[in-house]
Amino acid sequence: MKIVIIGGVAGGMSAATRLRRLMEDAEIIIFEKGPFVSFANCGLPYYVSGEIANRESLLVQTPESLKARFQLDVRPMHEVVAIEPEKKTVTVKHNGVETSETYDRLILSPGAKPFVPPIAGLETATNVHSLRNVPDLDAIMQQITADTKQAVVIGAGFIGLEMAENLKKRGLAVTIVEKAPHVLPPLDEEMAAFVQNELNREGILVKTGDSAIEFKENGQKVVLESGEVLSSDLTILSVGVQPETTLAKEAGLTLGLRGGIVVNERYQTSDPAIYAVGDAIVVKQQITDTDALIALASPANRQGRQVADVIAGLNRSNRGSIGTAIVRVFEQTAASTGLSERVVKQAGLPVAVVHVSGKDHAGYYPGATDILLKLVFNPETGEIYGAQGIGQKGVDKRIDILATAIKSNLTIFDLPELEFTYAPPFGSAKDPVNMLGYAAMNLAEGLSESIQWYQLKEELAKGKQLLDVRNTSELAQGAFPNATHIPLNELCDRLAELDPAQEWIVSCHSGLRSYVAERLLKQHGFHVKNLDGAFALYHAVLPEELVYV
Amino acid sequence: MKIVIIGGVAGGMSAATRLRRLMEDAEIIIFEKGPFVSFANCGLPYYVSGEIANRESLLVQTPESLKARFQLDVRPMHEVVAIEPEKKTVTVKHNGVETSETYDRLILSPGAKPFVPPIAGLETATNVHSLRNVPDLDAIMQQITADTKQAVVIGAGFIGLEMAENLKKRGLAVTIVEKAPHVLPPLDEEMAAFVQNELNREGILVKTGDSAIEFKENGQKVVLESGEVLSSDLTILSVGVQPETTLAKEAGLTLGLRGGIVVNERYQTSDPAIYAVGDAIVVKQQITDTDALIALASPANRQGRQVADVIAGLNRSNRGSIGTAIVRVFEQTAASTGLSERVVKQAGLPVAVVHVSGKDHAGYYPGATDILLKLVFNPETGEIYGAQGIGQKGVDKRIDILATAIKSNLTIFDLPELEFTYAPPFGSAKDPVNMLGYAAMNLAEGLSESIQWYQLKEELAKGKQLLDVRNTSELAQGAFPNATHIPLNELCDRLAELDPAQEWIVSCHSGLRSYVAERLLKQHGFHVKNLDGAFALYHAVLPEELVYV
Repeated sequence: MKIVIIGGVAGGMSAATRLRRLMEDAEIIIFEKGPFVSFANCGLPYYVSGEIANRESLLVQTPESLKARFQLDVRPMHEVVAIEPEKKTVTVKHNGVETSETYDRLILSPGAKPFVPPIAGLETATNVHSLRNVPDLDAIMQQITADTKQAVVIGAGFIGLEMAENLKKRGLAVTIVEKAPHVLPPLDEEMAAFVQNELNREGILVKTGDSAIEFKENGQKVVLESGEVLSSDLTILSVGVQPETTLAKEAGLTLGLRGGIVVNERYQTSDPAIYAVGDAIVVKQQITDTDALIALASPANRQGRQVADVIAGLNRSNRGSIGTAIVRVFEQTAASTGLSERVVKQAGLPVAVVHVSGKDHAGYYPGATDILLKLVFNPETGEIYGAQGIGQKGVDKRIDILATAIKSNLTIFDLPELEFTYAPPFGSAKDPVNMLGYAAMNLAEGLSESIQWYQLKEELAKGKQLLDVRNTSELAQGAFPNATHIPLNELCDRLAELDPAQEWIVSCHSGLRSYVAERLLKQHGFHVKNLDGAFALYHAVLPEELVYV
Repeated sequence: MKIVIIGGVAGGMSAATRLRRLMEDAEIIIFEKGPFVSFANCGLPYYVSGEIANRESLLVQTPESLKARFQLDVRPMHEVVAIEPEKKTVTVKHNGVETSETYDRLILSPGAKPFVPPIAGLETATNVHSLRNVPDLDAIMQQITADTKQAVVIGAGFIGLEMAENLKKRGLAVTIVEKAPHVLPPLDEEMAAFVQNELNREGILVKTGDSAIEFKENGQKVVLESGEVLSSDLTILSVGVQPETTLAKEAGLTLGLRGGIVVNERYQTSDPAIYAVGDAIVVKQQITDTDALIALASPANRQGRQVADVIAGLNRSNRGSIGTAIVRVFEQTAASTGLSERVVKQAGLPVAVVHVSGKDHAGYYPGATDILLKLVFNPETGEIYGAQGIGQKGVDKRIDILATAIKSNLTIFDLPELEFTYAPPFGSAKDPVNMLGYAAMNLAEGLSESIQWYQLKEELAKGKQLLDVRNTSELAQGAFPNATHIPLNELCDRLAELDPAQEWIVSCHSGLRSYVAERLLKQHGFHVKNLDGAFALYHAVLPEELVYV
């Protein structure tokens, strides 16, 4: 059998090497239009700062090593310019010369390409770059000279933030422009606020709710929709990606959501001899069972291996993806899996959320740092839609556990049952993931009622009263205006100070003591709700609403 | 309702605080025979080295704080000496005076006590200590003076290893004596070998397959079964724990496995007004659905909360435990969840195992360290019985994920589907957990056949031949005697050098290249098996069987 693969990175190369392990006699040709195959595209931003010091380390495999080990015929700088499904051939361009190659099976792994918005002046700008591959990286590095002082990053998604961090570490002044109301649009606003605060702390200017509308002076000036004009020696365009499906479209293959390639569960396109994997295909978002484009390395690698198995006759099917992602932003880590609160609301599903603060490991053991987790779930069934996490350490672990829980169809009622490794350097007897389950159960079972940070102002305006149960010493960090203040440990003795006819909202620092207070008050007949995430969350997202004395 | 709780640490205190949040009007009395409640017992060893510098930080709550916040009546130094179930009373001894206290519901959370083997001379030894609570810790600290040079730790389980590490860091010379053939008996031998190597590297003497049979000279001499005599200024006895169930037994409650308290799914003992939780109860090992004693903080805390829910009328049941544990031993971490290979074999279940080497994060990003994972599974159904991990970083994450997978009844076929956070500082596009699934599937589906490290010598003696496909430069680390050596990248061209009539076992450094070689050879008609874990594993557990040139 002769198998031709278009695209020599994640999905394509996983398919190629797995095919060889299953089909020793197959002829396997990989066409890659760029100069490199199997490179570490997720590592590219870290070369900008020098954190990854050696460019060679980004090049995981070479055509020579793949030839020696897997007898693969890897052809970089070979661009497939056309597919002829009826003839089972592809037309390949190399050094300006077009040739034809036949196939028995064709695997498309073209990936996703940076979305380039139609900004005026882009064609004459000489300092605007996207980052997708090693040549892009080389172009960026060439742009960075001793005179390069100011960088503008347009788009504050995962790649945008990684580039901002690494450019800053490289010594440039960095401004981020993001069209959405907050950075990291895959996360919800209040979680993203911690990232934005970290960026500010590191001296990066962040302009949200704004976008670039024109490049002037060959890109030296970036004009924003707000009218502001930024100076830029280097501009990174990272406003998202779109499936690279020109070839598939011209070949007449069926396309779906936002131009993605439609495949069946066995990765077959509308032409049964042509398969497709990776960022370019439409997948099922498992949680909603709806079509989605998920451009991530992990599913791409899995799909590449699976399509090889399918072609070799093994029984595999694509079960879909949930989408799990992480980004380090200086000292903070932000991660998410599944659906955000915003997306669940847009889908019109029943939704509740809970925020839990914890430590990455036992608080009594040195070096413990804060973790904030958010769980998005169905309060009627307990189904988990998604989770997000922020913190310095251990966020990856918790989100990976929660991603596993979602993939396993666990509900909120199962989270307390999970038994994690516990020794003081690693965790706590009740891990924050367990606590998420307990907190969500309290809501689902009606033991606790909560309001979210964005509801507080409105609820207070309606006449509710805020009770702050932090210790007096904690008020120095900031306080809610017009709040009643009784430390939790005094609450029982001072109940008479509270008007039972009043509706109350209770807050503490992170939400644990306020829940205890809520339960106490509820059992004494008070109407009371808990401010989910409490002062710490509110302070991160709306610091200007607090008073500082 | 009046609820009396015996035992004021993990399970008991979780029950008490949860009860208060659910039953504001209940009278809740906690009797604790020791001077402290709610202390961080898992943190005690770290105070020995000073890593936890402040003794106060081990005391998480005090009776005063629990009174103020939860209106709990916490009575330390109160030992319950008898339960009178027919009268619903307990007899309590405090300052030598016995009083009686009634209850409507009684919760037993007595925990487990150190098992003290009948070693001759123990009663006259003045320097032998167990470590269960703060007074034990204080006694140990008092024993450590400027003259304390030599410590002997008897028992190399989790606590024994933590004590050994912390005594060493304190500056003592440490010898460990373990009756089992290897340290960390909950792990399998080859995984524990890495821990033993780390102990040796740090200068700790480890004597396995030996035990203390007599203390002489007030404990200054420890006589071993082997005849060896160790000098000791301080001896730690940590050979395991047993349920503290004297009270329960005397009260006539039904006891089960190894004296553990029998409870139903709602934590009720044989007396319906008496409940029990924590290390003292018999639980279901979820994987085998058999009785088990699992003395761990995480289940104890969960059970404490659940029994409170049950008493408050919420619908809860104990679903059982799988057992997940971790220990840091200097630079290495060892962790396990579920059942070991040894236990599964003893249970007579169909079993296969696979070892996978990986990195804690992307190899091309600085600071990546090795992780070795072992999966124990049913090759017929794919059911996961257990997992173990060794490495410097990220072992907790992988074992927590696998514990979640086991709790969720995922099979080996589900592990590749899991979508983890991936950015270079945190993971890899194919995480070692995904790789475990792929490797296990290869075995289950017959694509790969493996032999284990303990089978190699026997297989070679039967006439099989070992093929080492490492690069030539790697042979300097050690080599298998009489092996054929062909680097993987040359294998395809040098197939003619191998006798197809010969049965082959193939090895590389960690098992990935040898699998590629196995597939190559299989498809060329060779009889070949893969040495699971390859050179690296063999070198850790049987270095004396290798040759060094």
